[in-house]
Amino acid sequence: MPAVKAIVATDPTGPLTVGTVIRRDPGPRDVLIEIVWSGVCHSDIHTVRGDWGPVQYPLAVGHEIAGIVTAVGDEVTSHAVGDRVGVGCMVGSCRECDNCRAGQEQYCERGFVATYAGVDEDGTVTQGGYATHVVVAEDFVLRIPDALPFDKVAPLLCAGITTFSPLRHWNVGPGMRVAVVGMGGLGHLAVKIAHAMGAEVTVLSQSLRKRDDGLAFGADHFYATSDPATFTTLARSFDLILNTVSAPLVLDDYLGLLALDGTFVSVGAPPEPASVTLFTLFTNRRRFAGSSIGGIRETQEMLDFCAEHGVVPEVEVIAADQINKAWEKVVAGDVRYRYVIDISTLAQG
Amino acid sequence: MPAVKAIVATDPTGPLTVGTVIRRDPGPRDVLIEIVWSGVCHSDIHTVRGDWGPVQYPLAVGHEIAGIVTAVGDEVTSHAVGDRVGVGCMVGSCRECDNCRAGQEQYCERGFVATYAGVDEDGTVTQGGYATHVVVAEDFVLRIPDALPFDKVAPLLCAGITTFSPLRHWNVGPGMRVAVVGMGGLGHLAVKIAHAMGAEVTVLSQSLRKRDDGLAFGADHFYATSDPATFTTLARSFDLILNTVSAPLVLDDYLGLLALDGTFVSVGAPPEPASVTLFTLFTNRRRFAGSSIGGIRETQEMLDFCAEHGVVPEVEVIAADQINKAWEKVVAGDVRYRYVIDISTLAQG
Repeated sequence: MPAVKAIVATDPTGPLTVGTVIRRDPGPRDVLIEIVWSGVCHSDIHTVRGDWGPVQYPLAVGHEIAGIVTAVGDEVTSHAVGDRVGVGCMVGSCRECDNCRAGQEQYCERGFVATYAGVDEDGTVTQGGYATHVVVAEDFVLRIPDALPFDKVAPLLCAGITTFSPLRHWNVGPGMRVAVVGMGGLGHLAVKIAHAMGAEVTVLSQSLRKRDDGLAFGADHFYATSDPATFTTLARSFDLILNTVSAPLVLDDYLGLLALDGTFVSVGAPPEPASVTLFTLFTNRRRFAGSSIGGIRETQEMLDFCAEHGVVPEVEVIAADQINKAWEKVVAGDVRYRYVIDISTLAQG
Repeated sequence: MPAVKAIVATDPTGPLTVGTVIRRDPGPRDVLIEIVWSGVCHSDIHTVRGDWGPVQYPLAVGHEIAGIVTAVGDEVTSHAVGDRVGVGCMVGSCRECDNCRAGQEQYCERGFVATYAGVDEDGTVTQGGYATHVVVAEDFVLRIPDALPFDKVAPLLCAGITTFSPLRHWNVGPGMRVAVVGMGGLGHLAVKIAHAMGAEVTVLSQSLRKRDDGLAFGADHFYATSDPATFTTLARSFDLILNTVSAPLVLDDYLGLLALDGTFVSVGAPPEPASVTLFTLFTNRRRFAGSSIGGIRETQEMLDFCAEHGVVPEVEVIAADQINKAWEKVVAGDVRYRYVIDISTLAQG
């Protein structure tokens, strides 16, 4: 078991290559998963490039994992061999702090164990889902509802929960006017989920290039942020703005679009500090908030919600040997809307 | 009636002098108030100095007004001659927009009419409370409960409502851990009000100089922000931080003190944009918000709350001819905790 085939980075900038990573032998509470589909997230690239700090190589990234359970530890009760399961951005947390006990493991006070490039409970560095198998503690493994298509479900495990969580937290529903900034991997799911929650949804995209897609995904309105008129036309008109863009924005322009007690919540993470004028926040008692993925219980709720409402990511399936080209396209913003690796092409390749 | 005695600024930097300002003849819905006490707010100084934009001179400032009704228009129903009344930062608003109709006139979409240096409904520039009389539309006049001491009540009309409103809006009560940044005119009232609401209150002050006062006002804890250990000791420990300081802060340090779903709300207004790191907001799903004074209905609620709970500002009463020295002390932060002008010394001076 220990060494499994994987797509690995061996340095920050070189191409990914096929290699191996080590998995632990499954413990009594672990689940062994044969990975079938693995989503490609921009975070994978940032991590390998060292944009968020130095990492150890070789490293397999990937935190949008869909697979089949092939073995379970003696004490595992919630998953069985043959189940379709998912793993997202976390594979562990302290389970003891206030936040963990509240089901908010993503805000674990000691820091959750990231699915890759994290420090696992045994001190080893975690390796992600661009691989044929993974071993994960059962309470960080999600059930994939039958109604969700297996080949498309993986992006829900990061892009889906990252947008679902703030939409749920800020009580999105009928009567709410929601804007989604950016319509990429995260944004296109935000549009679908907010629409399924019953909100009036507006997309704020750099151009009108994706307008037809946005309306098909359930948006009611679509505006280009490259047009300055957008910011006057839409002034004071949203209850919630969900920003999925990691490039720096002129925040005051976006905050100006909020109605009374409106919130601008960012899941996009530019490394530069954000600059906000206090008087813009005073107007309409506005709020600027952050949100980070979602808890495990909430991730299951999201999967069940997507199954019930037919929310399915738009994916382009790629073979393992297309990963370097795919990363280039992710960086260029040229993907509609998420790459998913068919891991059988790695296993058999 | 038209010309009344006032303390006026005739330019941005010179001393204030005694002069006159024009009041309109009271209309059918107006109240004529003989001003008895007039609070001194740092905003008065910023406005005269032009810190927030150019203003017209001569200008009488002052938006913490306590007085006696001496005449009412034919249609006035809520106030009568002889009543003790107050006027705060607003003397008008459009009354028609969504925010006004929601009782949130401070967020009037057309902008409320400020008590001084604002543009009144008749197009004239408003003149504030450093004067013997003022004429105000009845729906912007507050009742002063009998239980509140007349000579100390004025600061509640700005400093009181500005801190009460966010504390109420963010549901401060028993079990909430509230920090108040800065213990000046606003901060000392924030401590008293948050304590009266039942919260566990911590003061974050530059030094421990005002510690005894803070504890006497109802604070449970008092820390110096000049001590870096404060930011490690108190990390992740507050549900709400109310910032009353207008000097720029290292915001990430303060945001780091917030627990899960905690909010940093600022009523202090540095002119420079605030700088916030997104990853700090992601941690614990933190929120950064603004708040501006409070609505008229809420201001009345605040006065009634203060009367019921014995919340009274700490004031130093001054004569009209001490105003220039008082302003110097306000700028130096050397007042405990609010100057109130005895307007009889202007009327008779």
